[in-house]
Amino acid sequence: MPAKIKVLVWHECRHEKKNKAVQEIYPEGIHKVIAAGLEQLGGFEVRTATLDDPEQGITPEVLQWADVVTWWGHMAHADVLDEKVAMVRKAVLEGMGLLVLHSGHYSKIFKALMGTTCSLRWREMGERERVWVCEPGHPIAEGIGDCIELPNSEMYGEPFGIPTPEKQVFISWYQGGDVFRSGCCYERGHGRIFYFSPGHETYPIYYHPQIRRVISNACKWAARRVNIPDTCPNAKTPHEAVPPQKLDLSYMKP
Amino acid sequence: MPAKIKVLVWHECRHEKKNKAVQEIYPEGIHKVIAAGLEQLGGFEVRTATLDDPEQGITPEVLQWADVVTWWGHMAHADVLDEKVAMVRKAVLEGMGLLVLHSGHYSKIFKALMGTTCSLRWREMGERERVWVCEPGHPIAEGIGDCIELPNSEMYGEPFGIPTPEKQVFISWYQGGDVFRSGCCYERGHGRIFYFSPGHETYPIYYHPQIRRVISNACKWAARRVNIPDTCPNAKTPHEAVPPQKLDLSYMKP
Amino acid sequence: MPAKIKVLVWHECRHEKKNKAVQEIYPEGIHKVIAAGLEQLGGFEVRTATLDDPEQGITPEVLQWADVVTWWGHMAHADVLDEKVAMVRKAVLEGMGLLVLHSGHYSKIFKALMGTTCSLRWREMGERERVWVCEPGHPIAEGIGDCIELPNSEMYGEPFGIPTPEKQVFISWYQGGDVFRSGCCYERGHGRIFYFSPGHETYPIYYHPQIRRVISNACKWAARRVNIPDTCPNAKTPHEAVPPQKLDLSYMKP
Amino acid sequence: MPAKIKVLVWHECRHEKKNKAVQEIYPEGIHKVIAAGLEQLGGFEVRTATLDDPEQGITPEVLQWADVVTWWGHMAHADVLDEKVAMVRKAVLEGMGLLVLHSGHYSKIFKALMGTTCSLRWREMGERERVWVCEPGHPIAEGIGDCIELPNSEMYGEPFGIPTPEKQVFISWYQGGDVFRSGCCYERGHGRIFYFSPGHETYPIYYHPQIRRVISNACKWAARRVNIPDTCPNAKTPHEAVPPQKLDLSYMKP
Repeated sequence: MPAKIKVLVWHECRHEKKNKAVQEIYPEGIHKVIAAGLEQLGGFEVRTATLDDPEQGITPEVLQWADVVTWWGHMAHADVLDEKVAMVRKAVLEGMGLLVLHSGHYSKIFKALMGTTCSLRWREMGERERVWVCEPGHPIAEGIGDCIELPNSEMYGEPFGIPTPEKQVFISWYQGGDVFRSGCCYERGHGRIFYFSPGHETYPIYYHPQIRRVISNACKWAARRVNIPDTCPNAKTPHEAVPPQKLDLSYMKP
Repeated sequence: MPAKIKVLVWHECRHEKKNKAVQEIYPEGIHKVIAAGLEQLGGFEVRTATLDDPEQGITPEVLQWADVVTWWGHMAHADVLDEKVAMVRKAVLEGMGLLVLHSGHYSKIFKALMGTTCSLRWREMGERERVWVCEPGHPIAEGIGDCIELPNSEMYGEPFGIPTPEKQVFISWYQGGDVFRSGCCYERGHGRIFYFSPGHETYPIYYHPQIRRVISNACKWAARRVNIPDTCPNAKTPHEAVPPQKLDLSYMKP
Repeated sequence: MPAKIKVLVWHECRHEKKNKAVQEIYPEGIHKVIAAGLEQLGGFEVRTATLDDPEQGITPEVLQWADVVTWWGHMAHADVLDEKVAMVRKAVLEGMGLLVLHSGHYSKIFKALMGTTCSLRWREMGERERVWVCEPGHPIAEGIGDCIELPNSEMYGEPFGIPTPEKQVFISWYQGGDVFRSGCCYERGHGRIFYFSPGHETYPIYYHPQIRRVISNACKWAARRVNIPDTCPNAKTPHEAVPPQKLDLSYMKP
Repeated sequence: MPAKIKVLVWHECRHEKKNKAVQEIYPEGIHKVIAAGLEQLGGFEVRTATLDDPEQGITPEVLQWADVVTWWGHMAHADVLDEKVAMVRKAVLEGMGLLVLHSGHYSKIFKALMGTTCSLRWREMGERERVWVCEPGHPIAEGIGDCIELPNSEMYGEPFGIPTPEKQVFISWYQGGDVFRSGCCYERGHGRIFYFSPGHETYPIYYHPQIRRVISNACKWAARRVNIPDTCPNAKTPHEAVPPQKLDLSYMKP
């Protein structure tokens, strides 16, 4: 039996403290429901952490433990300490997987890894979303069928300010007339990154069996389990002999 | 006649103040030689700026003026103010072109746009480098022929910690036995980015006619001349009617 | 003034001969309307050719003349001679641009260049299509705004059996609930390829001003004007001395 | 324990019948040595097939059985029947993995899947090749270290007429002064393709422990084990209601 994949479900968990509508859907927080989904499908060892935990839930130990981190944030992106972002970024570039969920498109960590604005168009009317599979053979789409139908969702629309995805697994349709690249794969450094847009705090999207399947699949895909520290070595001794060189200035002046 | 392309040649220009060997090759600074190359080939309006200029040579005015910025830095990457990096990054994402040259691989601006370590292996023995053209039909390779032979160069070797290039225009061979992805194209936001590795401060590489041709070609390629400010709008009014929605909680509980 | 871009508008032109509904929309054939669009916007020298022309409209002379070919086909893909496909493919790989339109997704030439099935889901109900711009800074999207609204269109839906596009310029929304990667950029060999899905024979889509703009933009984008014949040369004389080698068999046997 | 990966090692096996130098290195044929390498490293069920086998070694049964096919060919590419190429291509697009080895760059199957010329520069002097790892975190590079040193190799040089690789795992250095994209990953349809250039018939490269490791890693990477037949369905019944449409001809005439 392969070793269980270690997933840290990180969650901002601020809406839950202020907003009744959110509390009714996610009484213990979105992170608990994401974690429950992974445990339901099996093959994972799951921990959760939130912004208001000690050290914002991000420690060297937990990043060393984790094969994959899932990241949900929205109203408090700015409160995440830059040093914590740097720690997660370093872990990803060394080989850890990262799932960025929904409003996490505007998290410091996603913007830092993408290098772009990560902006989009949005609308909150609870309209219908249909998440279409573009790559039925991709491991993240395994078992999903043609599409996922979400009765209520926040609209995220194009243009989405991201680098061209390396693989486009999902594209979403919205009732109000919009489309969105809702499932995007990247590799950065030695780590794998998956952005997945469904998951608004006032809709029970993380209870949806197909959404749970996508998140579970994506954690498996992102768990590369390599750890390659960054170096920029002086490769002093060449593999081939380099005899003493004469500086050629002949082309310097016409 | 098409309007001239406006290029800001930005240069750290610190080695030139301290190092005799550099002064002999670039007595007025690398930026002056890069600028001279562009003017020699024609079609450009060129300005230069350096780190020790007022405002580090980076102002809203000059970034609005420039179609393309070329960037050389090495020993003083850390001295570039974060606010200046943010200004250049914003300009690139809005449509300005950027050429990152040689040791600029470790500049704040390149790392910010790539999201990765941008680390590499290196060696300074003045060995021979041969820059091979992988994409002979690409505008950046126009007029270059099969390869560029540099009698003396600093070795930059793989692995290079970058996202997979969108187009690999050049790959370099080194006498000491190494290879390097020396010419890499990206689009980030609405701007185009070209990384080009040849150009060490103690070799007269920026006088080389083929290197000048590459830099000129790359400035033309990167000059998209669009300016699209970042927005993340609430698209309140949908294109299609969205009737009042009922919140479906049916899939919330098993 | 830059030289006009030479475009060959190639069209199957069989529906027009059999189907009244098509004749009413395109009495002289789709090719004449595409050509008129290019001439209206200016900057092009346009020729048209059809499947039933002598030599199927594909000759060495016209391919040498053309900077770009646009390709529309549907019911008679199989009638296009393999030798004609090979000629067009060769021209593209040597640097000619190619626009593949609508049902051309199943043309021999598109499948030959993509290497994949190019299959999709489809439905003909005349439903509404909205073509969203994903890359507002891309030259093919210039002047298009946020989206193009087509009152009637044939639905093309995901999954679309193509290689991951190098740049995703458009994604379409359909009234019936589907999405489609409707504007896809590729480079193959030295040529540029753009697939653009809107354009069914029973709807007046090629009269639409924004569709005309896209086709005009795409012809400009695809017109690279390079011509690099295929070779696979024996590079007998190395750039670096290779002394006589001894065959090392030491690792052959354990 | 995961099920063994089923690999069909397909080999042209014509050089071995005519050329003494080849017979001395590969007395039973290259395919037997590749198969032995896979069996040595374990986790595979291996079959071999050659061009002169009944049905050219390609049957519906064996393609249904195989998770991955490895392909070596050179002097007899033209003898491979088009129907056999079509069968392998179909299997790859449905999910089977494919490793294309060395001179297989010019095989019908590789050219059919890439859509390009797949041409390159070459030289046979038995010079040294050093295969550098560009992506140390990629599963195909697992256990390889910095590079593979091959004392004798045929030179393959840029430009290589391929689509931009989706992931560049290896780049090779040659003693004579050339470079080559020697390890290239693609996904086409639902299948994964890896091109790996080392492996000339007169050098014992397929005995090399690191080369064996690469081939073993690549077979594991390419074994996706999905099987998704091609369809192009009429999605007659939309997910969303499409009321009867009125044909809008308003934009047809100015």
